[in-house]
Amino acid sequence: MKNIDHIGIAVKNLDERTTYYTNVLGMKLLNIEEVESEGVRVAFIDANNTHIELLEPLTNESAIYKYLEKRGEGIHHIALLVENIEDEMERMRKEGATLLSEKPKNGAGGAKVAFIHPKSSNGVLYELVERNEKKES
Amino acid sequence: MKNIDHIGIAVKNLDERTTYYTNVLGMKLLNIEEVESEGVRVAFIDANNTHIELLEPLTNESAIYKYLEKRGEGIHHIALLVENIEDEMERMRKEGATLLSEKPKNGAGGAKVAFIHPKSSNGVLYELVERNEKKES
Repeated sequence: MKNIDHIGIAVKNLDERTTYYTNVLGMKLLNIEEVESEGVRVAFIDANNTHIELLEPLTNESAIYKYLEKRGEGIHHIALLVENIEDEMERMRKEGATLLSEKPKNGAGGAKVAFIHPKSSNGVLYELVERNEKKES
Repeated sequence: MKNIDHIGIAVKNLDERTTYYTNVLGMKLLNIEEVESEGVRVAFIDANNTHIELLEPLTNESAIYKYLEKRGEGIHHIALLVENIEDEMERMRKEGATLLSEKPKNGAGGAKVAFIHPKSSNGVLYELVERNEKKES
């Protein structure tokens, strides 16, 4: 674990909420993108030492849509930046953690991501994120 | 807003959960203290760019006890470090935010703290924290 990559927050209306984060909380909007594979529109917000990721569902199939239906708006996950995601997944499994997938998946911005089961982490959904600057074919 | 001071997580068993954060997630335990005014025992954990604060209730009157009863274990709040808490509270009120107290209160480690009502912040409980190194009488 290198540091906290971002905190993911489920919202119903991304544009309205982004204005709250910039005007009331005083943070800086970096960019907005759609992650079609996850069925979400995402705003990345700079909180200086880490990032806030606001997530708005684009379809009823999105995990964020289901989260909003069940729990309402709020903090959805904490993402941990890791050096080598496969190694971390292996190490965590040996320590007794339950991961939601066997292998990492593709996330926003070309990252490799995986999730720890919230039952493993006292109700907190932890995401592991590996960001590679240099891409190998 | 300077940066994210910490992420507060409500837990039932602090000692057990601290071990999870150090052994599985690979973070470093800094210290454990009791905050009697809040009825909690708190573990501060270093996540390199910010901190995780695990909160265990000491009494049934504690807000953390009530949170655990209602929602179960999970992320309780996000704390934002600010330069001058009174000025930030005044500025946020003018921007339309609802604060949970008129004036800041005393928090752990001699900090001054205040909370934004979660209804103001789409279900997220934000804490404002001012930490003063030099103390004036």
